[in-house]
Amino acid sequence: MLQQKSPTTRTLTRFRTELQDFMRTIRSLRSATALFGWDQETHMPAGAAERRAQQIAALEELIHREFTSPRARHLAERAHHLLPSLPEQDQRMVRLFLREHHRIASLPRRLARELAYTQAIAVESWRHARRRNTFELFAPQLEKLLQLKREQADCYGYAEHPYEALLKLYEPDISLAQVRPLLTSLAQQMQALLDWARRQPAPSTPTFQHPVPCAAQFILGRHLCTAIGLDLQRGRIDYSTHPFCTALAPEDVRITTRCRESDPLMCIYSLLHELGHALYEQHLPAMLAETFAGEGASTAFHEAQALFWEDIIGRSFAFCRWAAPLWRQYFDSSLGTPWHQLTPEELFAAVNRVQPSLIRTEADEVTYHLHIFLRLELELDLLAGSLPVRELPEAWNAGMEHLLGLRPPDDASGCLQDIHWALGDFGYFPSYTLGKLYAAMLWKQLQQELPDVEEAIAAGNFAPILQWLSTRLYAVGALETPSEILQRVAGRTLTAEDFVEYLTAKLEHLYGEPYKR
Amino acid sequence: MLQQKSPTTRTLTRFRTELQDFMRTIRSLRSATALFGWDQETHMPAGAAERRAQQIAALEELIHREFTSPRARHLAERAHHLLPSLPEQDQRMVRLFLREHHRIASLPRRLARELAYTQAIAVESWRHARRRNTFELFAPQLEKLLQLKREQADCYGYAEHPYEALLKLYEPDISLAQVRPLLTSLAQQMQALLDWARRQPAPSTPTFQHPVPCAAQFILGRHLCTAIGLDLQRGRIDYSTHPFCTALAPEDVRITTRCRESDPLMCIYSLLHELGHALYEQHLPAMLAETFAGEGASTAFHEAQALFWEDIIGRSFAFCRWAAPLWRQYFDSSLGTPWHQLTPEELFAAVNRVQPSLIRTEADEVTYHLHIFLRLELELDLLAGSLPVRELPEAWNAGMEHLLGLRPPDDASGCLQDIHWALGDFGYFPSYTLGKLYAAMLWKQLQQELPDVEEAIAAGNFAPILQWLSTRLYAVGALETPSEILQRVAGRTLTAEDFVEYLTAKLEHLYGEPYKR
Repeated sequence: MLQQKSPTTRTLTRFRTELQDFMRTIRSLRSATALFGWDQETHMPAGAAERRAQQIAALEELIHREFTSPRARHLAERAHHLLPSLPEQDQRMVRLFLREHHRIASLPRRLARELAYTQAIAVESWRHARRRNTFELFAPQLEKLLQLKREQADCYGYAEHPYEALLKLYEPDISLAQVRPLLTSLAQQMQALLDWARRQPAPSTPTFQHPVPCAAQFILGRHLCTAIGLDLQRGRIDYSTHPFCTALAPEDVRITTRCRESDPLMCIYSLLHELGHALYEQHLPAMLAETFAGEGASTAFHEAQALFWEDIIGRSFAFCRWAAPLWRQYFDSSLGTPWHQLTPEELFAAVNRVQPSLIRTEADEVTYHLHIFLRLELELDLLAGSLPVRELPEAWNAGMEHLLGLRPPDDASGCLQDIHWALGDFGYFPSYTLGKLYAAMLWKQLQQELPDVEEAIAAGNFAPILQWLSTRLYAVGALETPSEILQRVAGRTLTAEDFVEYLTAKLEHLYGEPYKR
Repeated sequence: MLQQKSPTTRTLTRFRTELQDFMRTIRSLRSATALFGWDQETHMPAGAAERRAQQIAALEELIHREFTSPRARHLAERAHHLLPSLPEQDQRMVRLFLREHHRIASLPRRLARELAYTQAIAVESWRHARRRNTFELFAPQLEKLLQLKREQADCYGYAEHPYEALLKLYEPDISLAQVRPLLTSLAQQMQALLDWARRQPAPSTPTFQHPVPCAAQFILGRHLCTAIGLDLQRGRIDYSTHPFCTALAPEDVRITTRCRESDPLMCIYSLLHELGHALYEQHLPAMLAETFAGEGASTAFHEAQALFWEDIIGRSFAFCRWAAPLWRQYFDSSLGTPWHQLTPEELFAAVNRVQPSLIRTEADEVTYHLHIFLRLELELDLLAGSLPVRELPEAWNAGMEHLLGLRPPDDASGCLQDIHWALGDFGYFPSYTLGKLYAAMLWKQLQQELPDVEEAIAAGNFAPILQWLSTRLYAVGALETPSEILQRVAGRTLTAEDFVEYLTAKLEHLYGEPYKR
């Protein structure tokens, strides 16, 4: 066997420069797409909706064109060839490029175009169907999308179920064989916890149904976010119909919230959720920003940061001790609301109320994972074709009844409630549960390393937490996978144990009773 | 000689499809760049400035890459080949593509990149220099930019002066040999008119220096814009430091204004100016939107629309008859301002005051063209190298003294006042004067065809004007050049006569005196 000559420094330097150039192009296009998306939800004139869908689809087609260009093919060939000669950090970057190249260049242009186009159409169709509360109006687009997603999975390849391939788009280093048993077992544990919780007398809390002007909610939310660490010199907060976070760069991270005057918790906790995404993005190293490593480690790991701040920190008793005086201050008696006397205990009880409900985004920390589990099972059946699209509403409603004891009265509060499927995001939902499991594991580790953390939170001192997250997780961007990060930070692999332990302890505190199954 | 076979329908159809695909890609990239720019001036977090410059430069580099790709080269070759076989409308479209291809693909990538990068740096340097009121801080960047612009002109080719090539970027069918004598002669006529105007007693007008809250100014301005015809279902109005109009598509046209509490005219007339740009964009045919014909006929012709609405309509007596009651209504006595009794005569006098001043954007309709003439002469000398950059401030000040009898006390109110040179926009300034000449010619023709137009304006009925502009001009997008449009609409070629006649008549009305040189 001939020994291969090792590449010259010049070859490597040239490769690195061209790779960086390529990644910079793609990242700029993605920032442009992100700004189109942000603008669409916040400032775009209503009449521009159709054109905007076309503009975004055109940029996505261009991204596909770039990835399938001779330039990218040549880069990928050299990447495979040079990989062994590179130092480890470079290898990681090159693998990210190869993964992304595989994700996109594996799809023929026709499929990429049809996916982009059908998703744009499907979202409009879904909105329409939801407004009209009629699943049948969305069914043909869903059927078409499922067909395209099966084709996409075929392009990537899989052993038994197309879901395996789609799941990897969001969570590259976890398999369906791991996820499904994990979520199934967790669902059972959550049902048991729910049964117990429903037998406990509800702790006292003032009704949160008293109207508060949106401006006051927004200002309290902004105060909380900036006190925790959101940098508004490098970010923004706006209103939108559905809260989201979008990052154009670490220096330009934008979150939104929504407001219902009668429900200030919605505005505030939506903000705390998006804050978690934003802190991650604002702390990604600027020098990675124009590379494929300048993003979160995975979709689930991004959700982990959001749920960490929204739930684990934001719904903790320590946080309520800090936040309750701020609620009293911002929603003072001049607004005529009952919160000018709000106690930490009341706030804690209010933000941790456990009760089955129809809408995932409004679910508590226990029932939330039953919503996810239902979606996972339905996605599996839909993609396999064992559940025909027309039977989805009934399957959804039966699943809700089985898991939560509630039957949605209509499609809008049933299978039409989420936008994900219309966006073609099959395989995304498990990220929420996985994210919560990651978050709980990180929290446990953080508590061990910073034993005084709860006192710091109660004092409004979030710097130690942010510092910990920033150096341990945020600093590596996507250069490590979630498993690698967990292993390095906590020396462990993914488990639901920490989450169950965390949640049980919190509910025991809330009800003043030890948990018994 | 062999007879060439005429291309098959199939060849032509395929060419058309590929051309459309290419133009759609470029237009989407330009919409993305436009949104980056709009956002930068309106909503972007301060800390993102440097990154944004890089993101925009990356998209511009990508546009250059697309134009120099084998795909574009192949399209251009076929375009030259097929041109004679195409129907006229298609020929026009293909010529627009070839012109744009020539503009961009003639520049080597190194130059395109250096231009984009140097412009981004130069703008920051200019802002800094203006804040510090020190031209020397900007001089090195200006020097560098001039060098690059000379190189750019060399790439396009010219007979005697690089300015010839640069002027064509903004006004493709007018030559320097036409523009320079036209602007020189106009400057002389404006100086004579100014001398006469300054000898007239100033008509009475209340001081406009009384503070009005910005919200009230904004709402009056928005009322005027929507009453005239701005469609806010397909557009927006925001605040920015410098007013501008940007169009992402005919369905998404955005204008901005600025507000100084003590000077409501600034906010209102900035809006009317941008309104003119926006009406043009909103009325461009939607089916041209993804092609190179879906824009204004030229930079000057775009300015013509802005100046038409701002000056010719907005500063007419008929307009003041309609608008004065609205000023009284929106700035009522509860604001403590003197305008709750404003008469049309007072408004007319206020918006037509002639007085030499230092700042171009605040100049009246007479002295404005002296500002432009000065810039044209300085640009010519700077590009030729006969005026060294370091001598620019003194040349500027001497020119101001010669033309307007005013000597700027510093660089900020002198040669640092405009952003254009920092953006590399040498050759742009004449567009303002040319635009005004176009506007006056269009106005004369419109008056002949719609003899009751002034009564319609006074009654707030702008539909006939908009209808006239829309069918005569806006409907062709860039498929005709300004000269072709003028020829078709008015059967004439460009002249300053109509403008001088229009302005003289207005000032005679204002002063109640016939003009005597």
